[in-house]
Amino acid sequence: MDSSEEAPRRTTTTGWAARDSSGVLSPYTYTLRKTGTEDVLIKVLFCGVCHTDLFNVKNHFGITRYPAVPGHEVVGEVLEVGSDVTKFTVGDKVGVGYLVGCCRNCRPCTSGEEQYCKKKIYTFSDVYTDGQLTQGGFADSMIVDHKFVVKIPEGMVLEQAAPLLCAGVTVYSPLSHFGLNKSGVRGGILGLGGVGHMGVKIAKAMGHHVTVISSSDKKKAEAMEHLGADEYLVSSDATRMQEAADSLDYILDTVPAFHPLEPYLSLLGFGGKLILIGASNAPLQFVSPMLLRGRRSIIGSFIGSMKEAEEMLEFCKEKGLSSMIEVIQMDYINTAFQRLENNDVKYRFVVDVAGSELQHQ
Amino acid sequence: MDSSEEAPRRTTTTGWAARDSSGVLSPYTYTLRKTGTEDVLIKVLFCGVCHTDLFNVKNHFGITRYPAVPGHEVVGEVLEVGSDVTKFTVGDKVGVGYLVGCCRNCRPCTSGEEQYCKKKIYTFSDVYTDGQLTQGGFADSMIVDHKFVVKIPEGMVLEQAAPLLCAGVTVYSPLSHFGLNKSGVRGGILGLGGVGHMGVKIAKAMGHHVTVISSSDKKKAEAMEHLGADEYLVSSDATRMQEAADSLDYILDTVPAFHPLEPYLSLLGFGGKLILIGASNAPLQFVSPMLLRGRRSIIGSFIGSMKEAEEMLEFCKEKGLSSMIEVIQMDYINTAFQRLENNDVKYRFVVDVAGSELQHQ
Repeated sequence: MDSSEEAPRRTTTTGWAARDSSGVLSPYTYTLRKTGTEDVLIKVLFCGVCHTDLFNVKNHFGITRYPAVPGHEVVGEVLEVGSDVTKFTVGDKVGVGYLVGCCRNCRPCTSGEEQYCKKKIYTFSDVYTDGQLTQGGFADSMIVDHKFVVKIPEGMVLEQAAPLLCAGVTVYSPLSHFGLNKSGVRGGILGLGGVGHMGVKIAKAMGHHVTVISSSDKKKAEAMEHLGADEYLVSSDATRMQEAADSLDYILDTVPAFHPLEPYLSLLGFGGKLILIGASNAPLQFVSPMLLRGRRSIIGSFIGSMKEAEEMLEFCKEKGLSSMIEVIQMDYINTAFQRLENNDVKYRFVVDVAGSELQHQ
Repeated sequence: MDSSEEAPRRTTTTGWAARDSSGVLSPYTYTLRKTGTEDVLIKVLFCGVCHTDLFNVKNHFGITRYPAVPGHEVVGEVLEVGSDVTKFTVGDKVGVGYLVGCCRNCRPCTSGEEQYCKKKIYTFSDVYTDGQLTQGGFADSMIVDHKFVVKIPEGMVLEQAAPLLCAGVTVYSPLSHFGLNKSGVRGGILGLGGVGHMGVKIAKAMGHHVTVISSSDKKKAEAMEHLGADEYLVSSDATRMQEAADSLDYILDTVPAFHPLEPYLSLLGFGGKLILIGASNAPLQFVSPMLLRGRRSIIGSFIGSMKEAEEMLEFCKEKGLSSMIEVIQMDYINTAFQRLENNDVKYRFVVDVAGSELQHQ
């Protein structure tokens, strides 16, 4: 065996990439870096479709680097591990979320909250330490630093695990961090999309009394019957909003667009928290007495840490929690993006990547 | 001694009241309730002048009841105590702040944070349990439930203690509640008025590195030399604001008027808190990524509890902390309100109530 045989090979992979801000995806073949000593080569099985993927391929935040292969709710199987990787072995089912790198030295990194590292590297459309663009999970395979890989607990349905890796941890992290992971808490979920539906499920599994708040009653039956919410409030129903004033310990605000905050702030009780988990450049507005009254707060929370992702997966396994998904093939992704834009999905698209023919449109 | 001699007398007192939203104060004579079993009759010695007094007499919040005698930073001497009052005796020097009543049964009340009780009764321009209007400290005397009376620690200069009873506790309460009462913390003070100057002094006494943030450099010398601030940032100086990005653990925002929040949010580091302590009905605005980045929060805080007021007075006594005041006579109050409106005071007017001729204009 000569040394050239021992050196890790560079792998060619095919993903689906957007080439410009039209956001239309089509096949794109590129080369992955060699599997480093701390890296894991993953064959992608499933990948969830998040609003952020849509925003990104359309360059809504003005930071997209093309060609851009999105996808950051990745479930896959380990094909190869670097020599320093002990946590995973070939054949393990694993997950990758929104991040693939961080500085490891700053205050967030050293306190195990690397999602707040200013040098964090996003799973897609970012620049890796080797200068190459990062490409996401809408692809045959990925190479990822083992720090950013989690094990999928035995027995979990793999396609259902996909939405947990971003939507799930985004909901779990603030509830855990702010001491709300306990029964008896009264929570509100604003926005019943991919993240919101996960919010209802995780909050219910924590033993919360959960109120879904929506602009219309269209989703009432679903929220109450399928997701198990305890109450459903239509924000334009002034009488019921007034009756519900001061009743909630928190609201998870998943809406990534303009919306008035005051109707929701008024629902919060003493010390209540409006937790923003949806990013939008549309200005949000409130008047200060709404916060002074009852020491309410508006808090931003961004995905979650790798530690929280592991905890959340264990929590979901213990509670038998599943996500509600629509599994699609890759050649349906452009239609799926359109439907996502119209909120026409219950509640998360998941691409069956391994079952798709990636090289042809 | 017959029973009529034992019964508490009703007391006539003279204060200075606004009659309408012009906010102009003039002498007004009224009758206090009899000293109840839990009440304290107080001869007012000094009373601070706060922005809220000004807003209230001019009916900015639309809730003023006239005639309205303002004043809620009251320092006085005990003249009489009810039969159930054991904490105070005649001759004690005492203080009264923003509240004189609460329900005692709700979650805030039972957790010792009665300032968040929804049935709290304000010291002035509110309705007391007997149906009478409450009247504040710009008056010869007051009768106050002993729960809402604090002892002024021995040796404190009485006129300097006045601003502590609202401005002081308003600053102290959030710093204490959010675990920021420790050295090494990096704080910002936005707005250098009566509350802001107290913010600098109390934060410095806690061992914080204190940055004053202002719209101009007019107050720089005062802030650095007289108040002991460590740094002074002009918010329009883009270079220095950029250099200071992500550096603060908290900002106490004392500005009771419209102002953009984003320049200040950008100064907050990981987990940083923008603590709003100034009430204004002017909408405040931000974009959600400013909060998601670094798990920042915007929090409202309203004065402080009676327990915190006692702690704060002891803290100020221990640290030898004094407020910077301009002592005035009552007949100067209308001019003082005008100057307060123009931010022309360093930093708090205090009325020498006992030394003023209250019955004549």
